[in-house]
Amino acid sequence: MNFQTLKLQQDGALLRVTIQNPPINLMNVVMVQELFQLGGRLHTDPGVRVVLLDSADPDFFIAHFDLEDLARAEADPSQGSKYPDINVIQSLTMSWKALPQVKIARIDGRCRGAGLEFLLGAMDMRFATPQARLCFPEASGSFLACGGGTSFTALAAGPSRALEFLLSARDFDGAEAERYNLVNRTLATAELDKYLQDLIERLLQRSPTVVAAHRAVFNAVYSGIVEPLFAGLAAENEGMRAALASPEMKAGIAAHLKAGQTRENELDLPATLARMSQPG
Amino acid sequence: MNFQTLKLQQDGALLRVTIQNPPINLMNVVMVQELFQLGGRLHTDPGVRVVLLDSADPDFFIAHFDLEDLARAEADPSQGSKYPDINVIQSLTMSWKALPQVKIARIDGRCRGAGLEFLLGAMDMRFATPQARLCFPEASGSFLACGGGTSFTALAAGPSRALEFLLSARDFDGAEAERYNLVNRTLATAELDKYLQDLIERLLQRSPTVVAAHRAVFNAVYSGIVEPLFAGLAAENEGMRAALASPEMKAGIAAHLKAGQTRENELDLPATLARMSQPG
Amino acid sequence: MNFQTLKLQQDGALLRVTIQNPPINLMNVVMVQELFQLGGRLHTDPGVRVVLLDSADPDFFIAHFDLEDLARAEADPSQGSKYPDINVIQSLTMSWKALPQVKIARIDGRCRGAGLEFLLGAMDMRFATPQARLCFPEASGSFLACGGGTSFTALAAGPSRALEFLLSARDFDGAEAERYNLVNRTLATAELDKYLQDLIERLLQRSPTVVAAHRAVFNAVYSGIVEPLFAGLAAENEGMRAALASPEMKAGIAAHLKAGQTRENELDLPATLARMSQPG
Repeated sequence: MNFQTLKLQQDGALLRVTIQNPPINLMNVVMVQELFQLGGRLHTDPGVRVVLLDSADPDFFIAHFDLEDLARAEADPSQGSKYPDINVIQSLTMSWKALPQVKIARIDGRCRGAGLEFLLGAMDMRFATPQARLCFPEASGSFLACGGGTSFTALAAGPSRALEFLLSARDFDGAEAERYNLVNRTLATAELDKYLQDLIERLLQRSPTVVAAHRAVFNAVYSGIVEPLFAGLAAENEGMRAALASPEMKAGIAAHLKAGQTRENELDLPATLARMSQPG
Repeated sequence: MNFQTLKLQQDGALLRVTIQNPPINLMNVVMVQELFQLGGRLHTDPGVRVVLLDSADPDFFIAHFDLEDLARAEADPSQGSKYPDINVIQSLTMSWKALPQVKIARIDGRCRGAGLEFLLGAMDMRFATPQARLCFPEASGSFLACGGGTSFTALAAGPSRALEFLLSARDFDGAEAERYNLVNRTLATAELDKYLQDLIERLLQRSPTVVAAHRAVFNAVYSGIVEPLFAGLAAENEGMRAALASPEMKAGIAAHLKAGQTRENELDLPATLARMSQPG
Repeated sequence: MNFQTLKLQQDGALLRVTIQNPPINLMNVVMVQELFQLGGRLHTDPGVRVVLLDSADPDFFIAHFDLEDLARAEADPSQGSKYPDINVIQSLTMSWKALPQVKIARIDGRCRGAGLEFLLGAMDMRFATPQARLCFPEASGSFLACGGGTSFTALAAGPSRALEFLLSARDFDGAEAERYNLVNRTLATAELDKYLQDLIERLLQRSPTVVAAHRAVFNAVYSGIVEPLFAGLAAENEGMRAALASPEMKAGIAAHLKAGQTRENELDLPATLARMSQPG
C-alpha cells in the first residue's frame, strides 16, 4: 500500500506506521482516508501483530485537524457523517480500537487536537518523551474535543485532572502527561527507544488468541462504561454542532486560517491562539 | 453579600472566596448556611466564571465540622435533614457541584473532615502546597466521613488507597495527597500561585457554553456511576445514624469537646485524638 | 491451627500470616486448602482485626501456582471447579475479599501468577519494597492470568497500563508497581516496616463496625462494576479452558516442568521462559 501521509515499514510481524504530512503533520481528509484504508487492511492481516505509530517530524506528531478541510467539509453537507451520533474521527478511532493487533504510539513533539483524540481512543498504549507536548486547543477556540477526546480524557485522567487539561488548553509536557495518565510512561528518548524495543519484542511473541483472550476480559470488566462511552461520544457531537453554529468558533477558525497553519504559528499553538484572541 | 465566615473578593469574572472563621476555621452551621446562600447567588450570576476557594489562615483551611453545632443539632430533631438519604453536608456539596462556574480550591494548612468532604465533592479541581494536611479523623472517632467524603475518596483514590486514607485517619501531606489523587497537583507555594494564576487566566477566557459542553460529555461518560454515587451517599447516612446512636461516638465527641476545639489541640488532631483514646 | 505452608503469629488483634513453602513458595493445592481453612476461621473470629500477609523467603513471596499440581488437576476431572464460571483461585480470592478483617500484604521478592492474583483481589491494601518483583508470566506461556488477575489488574491500573503489564509478562519492580497502581505504596525496607507498624497500630484501633461501615459505602459506590467483575472472571475462565486445550500451553507447561521449578530457574522467570521458547 502506498500512502501519501503515512510511511509503512514492515519488519516481521511489526508494522511501523510513520506519519509524514509536511510541513506540520496536519491530520487532513487524505490522512483520515488513508488511516481508514490501513485499518481495513489490518483488520484481516494476520501477518501483523504489533503496530507502532510514530512521526517523521521530531517537532510534530500530529499538529491537529486541518482547518481548511474542516471549513470545506462544513460548507459541503455531503461530506458530513451519515450517522447523527458518531462523527468521522470518532468512527475512525472506534474502528482502529477494534483491530486485533496491539497498537502503540511513540509520541515525540506536538500531538494536539484530532491527533491526540485518535491516540487516546485507538491506541492500546501510548509512550512519550519529555519533549512531547500534548494539548487540546479546542476550548480556546470556543468548542470542545469532539472526536472522542473529551470522553477518553475523562476516562483516563479522571474528572478533575481531565477538566483541567481540557479547559486550560495548554501544552502538557511528557512528564505531566504521564502524571495525568494520558500516556503509560514518559522516558528520555534513548531510554524510551530501548524500552519500546524490549516491549515490542515481547508483544511479538504473543499469539492473536492470547491477545484476544485478554481483550475479552477487559471488555467484560469495563462493560459498565461502554454504553456511557457512546453517550459521551454523542454528547461531544451535540457540543460540536452547537459550536459550529456559533459565531465565536467560525471567527476563531477564520482567524487561525488567516494567520496560517504555519510551522511558526503551530510550534506554540496555545500562545498563538491567545495572541489571536487579544482585542485589537 | 456580607458573610461572617467567608470573605468575598471579585476581580472581573473571578470570585475569590476566602474562608475566615477564627480561630481555626471550623465549619459550623453559620458557614454551611452562608455557603448555601453563596451557591444560590452563583447559580444565577453570569458575571462569575471562576471561583477560587482559599483560606485566610495559613495553618487551617477548614479544621472540621464544629462538634458543638453537631451535638446541638443531634439534640434538636427539627434541625435534621428532611430527606432520609441525603444529609446537609452532602446536599451542600451536590448543590455546589452543579454550579455552572469552574470551582478551584487552593489548599494550604489543615483541611479535615467536613471541609475535605466539601472540597472532594463540590470543587472541580483541588491544588495543594506541600504544607497542606488532608485527613478524615472520623474513623478514629468511631464513625465515618458521611458528608460525601467516603464516597468521593473511594472514587478518586480507588478502593485500596481510599481505605488506607480513611481508616488510618492520619494527616496526609500535600505530596501524598497528589499521589493518592486527592488533588490535581501539589506545588511549592510560590510555584503554585504562579500555576494557579496562569490556569485561572485561561479558565476566565472560557465561555459558560464551552464549560457546559465539557460537563455534558463528562456527565454522559460517568453516568454509570451517578446512581451508585447516590447509593454511596445513602450508605454514608446509614453509617452516620448507626454511629450517632453508639456510645463510642458520643463519648468521643464529648471527650473532644471537653479537651476543647483549640488551635493547640487541632494542629495535630490525629495525635490529639490518639492521646484522648488512651486509657487512664 | 497448624499449617504446612503458612506460619501464624498472633499479637493481640493482629494476625501475621507468613508464607513458607520452600524452596520457592509455590502456591500449591495444599496452600490453597490451607488458605481456604484459614479464611473460614477468620470469617468468624472477632479476635482478629488486621491480617498481615508476608513471606519467610526474602526472594520469593509466592513464585506462582505449582505446575505439577496444575497438570495433575487437569488429568483428574474430579478436581475441577463445580461451578462453570468461577475457578478455585477466583473462589479463594472472593471469599478472602469478603472477610471482615483489614487485610494487608507486605511484598518483598517475587510475587507472580496465582500469588499476585490473590494479592490483587483478596487484600485490601498492598505495600512493596523496591526489591519486589511483580509479574504475570501467563501470557508468555500462551494463556492468561485466570484467577482474577486479568480482571483486577484492569480495574487497578486502567486498560492501557494493565495491558502492557499483562502482555509484557516481565518483572515490574516495586517502583513500577506503585506507578501502575498495583500497590498502595513502595518504600525502602526499613521505611516500609515503620510505615506498616504505624498503619497497623491505627487499624487495630478501628472497630469491626467502623470498618464494615466503610466497606458498605465502597460497595455501594462501586456497585456498577460488581456485575461486570463477575463477567470478567467468567471471561478469564473461558480463556483458561480454551488455553488448556491448546498444544502451546500444554507444551509450555511440560517444558517448564522439564526444566524444573527450581530456585535458579524461577529467580528470573521471564528470562527462563524466554530461553525455553527459543527454537532449538
